Amino acid sequence: MTAANPTLKDQIMQNPDTGRAPVTVIGLGLMGQALAGAFLREGHPTTVWNRTAAKAEHLVARGATFTDSVGDAVAASPLVVVCVSDYDAVHELLDPLGEVLDGRVVVNLTSGTSRVARETAEWAAKRGADYLDGAILAVPQAIGTADAIILYSGPRSAFDLHEPALRSLAAGTTYLGEDHGLSSLYDVAVLSLMWNILNGFLQAAALLGAAGVDAATFAPMAKTGIGIVADWVAAYAQQIDDGTYAALDSTIDTHVAAMEHLVHESEALGVNAELPRFIKALTDRAVAGGHGGSGYAAMIEQFRTPSEVRS
Amino acid sequence: MTAANPTLKDQIMQNPDTGRAPVTVIGLGLMGQALAGAFLREGHPTTVWNRTAAKAEHLVARGATFTDSVGDAVAASPLVVVCVSDYDAVHELLDPLGEVLDGRVVVNLTSGTSRVARETAEWAAKRGADYLDGAILAVPQAIGTADAIILYSGPRSAFDLHEPALRSLAAGTTYLGEDHGLSSLYDVAVLSLMWNILNGFLQAAALLGAAGVDAATFAPMAKTGIGIVADWVAAYAQQIDDGTYAALDSTIDTHVAAMEHLVHESEALGVNAELPRFIKALTDRAVAGGHGGSGYAAMIEQFRTPSEVRS
Repeated sequence: MTAANPTLKDQIMQNPDTGRAPVTVIGLGLMGQALAGAFLREGHPTTVWNRTAAKAEHLVARGATFTDSVGDAVAASPLVVVCVSDYDAVHELLDPLGEVLDGRVVVNLTSGTSRVARETAEWAAKRGADYLDGAILAVPQAIGTADAIILYSGPRSAFDLHEPALRSLAAGTTYLGEDHGLSSLYDVAVLSLMWNILNGFLQAAALLGAAGVDAATFAPMAKTGIGIVADWVAAYAQQIDDGTYAALDSTIDTHVAAMEHLVHESEALGVNAELPRFIKALTDRAVAGGHGGSGYAAMIEQFRTPSEVRS
Repeated sequence: MTAANPTLKDQIMQNPDTGRAPVTVIGLGLMGQALAGAFLREGHPTTVWNRTAAKAEHLVARGATFTDSVGDAVAASPLVVVCVSDYDAVHELLDPLGEVLDGRVVVNLTSGTSRVARETAEWAAKRGADYLDGAILAVPQAIGTADAIILYSGPRSAFDLHEPALRSLAAGTTYLGEDHGLSSLYDVAVLSLMWNILNGFLQAAALLGAAGVDAATFAPMAKTGIGIVADWVAAYAQQIDDGTYAALDSTIDTHVAAMEHLVHESEALGVNAELPRFIKALTDRAVAGGHGGSGYAAMIEQFRTPSEVRS
């Protein structure tokens, strides 16, 4: 933090009326509106900007200040939260600003890749701003509740300074580390996990549906199964980190035999067998690599290796 | 149940000493030994057969009766549990038997496909036996505990008759329906779900590992994420059954944009990008099919359709 903006120190002090620091939210899509709403709910003096002023109206009615210029919005608070459609939009809005960014903390909750997050941190540094990249693991309706998780990466000092305000947005406010790319990486890692679970459920639902079983009939068992695997994760993680893959449940050979059944059932019932074949092809490679007697955690070696699986 | 074996009625009555019905276990691999051990623990008079007698020794020491012939083992109990390497072995053992199978209930816990289960039910019917096909969702160590789930399908009457004995094997003793193929289908459905969760975790671990994050560091967040998706399953199932796919969390368009990030991150970090590309290719098809504005449950249509995804 530099001395370029002498009022910043005053700004960052708690507001005497509410005990809360002022914040600015740039971008009032559904998520931006939810963020601003959560700040207001916790009593933060909140300045908002959006290209279309109409989206600010209900926030202004709740006490937010709307500014016509991005620069004025940024100048209003030491903490500037940006949540727009993509990083191009971030630059389009913030690039024209002069030294008003100097000394502020920009928290970018726009979705992107780790590479672009690191580039944006460099860009912010040239303007004297501290930069936190963030990833929201929540729908707009969950913002400000116990169900919301928001991940942050970048300078610890900037996070610590604004953590009280950021906690207004999510009970699961999580600092990941100094590397600005971490929040984007964790974001896609968690999403990937979620898509794979959903795909696994959809494959199962398609298979059972073809045999006349409703998805709702299967759902309770699916939930139990998902919960069982959730409890395996810590032990798998330990094996992955240790590089030792004792079979905790079944060996990969046993898994492959059952995967064969999955492929056959999918083909026989006329549902999509691509994902079953993909899973088996990937696992066959672990067997070919000498891991037939290992536990499934040995599959990490396949996921680390950028080769082609053609099912 | 026929009258061919007049002693069956007596056999099926509870044993006056233990209050438990006699049972037979054919096949004493690790799982068969666990099954016989659980019956013994609950006080069932237990007859066992295995090609190699040595595997029966510790069970005999605990009170089991070992017979040299499969026929004698089958004749000893109204409930015959078979757990061998595959269905060929089932037929190899039981085909030569004469009418000793008549009137008994054969519970086959050998792993196989739904088609073979239905064929085996027909085979058993010709010999006068009731047939239940089963699938064990547990490791041998969990047999007889609260953690074990065993699924059964086939005639409800046969299941009801022997449910008290079968409950000795698993707290999660679950009857699925009359169709003998259901237990095999549910088995691969649950396994498919588990493999997909594990693959999702391994992809995430590979990605974060390439950025220097230990799997153990990620594991708690992964567990939380898995638990969140577990809570979505009932609502997804309802949408699948109803055929209406309102976006509960994000639209498929939003998912695809994030999948693009996953593919880029995987490629940039040099980990295997095949699964990310597969997920995205499958989801792109839903967008092409007009489901960009739908919720992810609309992906069920892709899983029901047996077409090729080449990533």
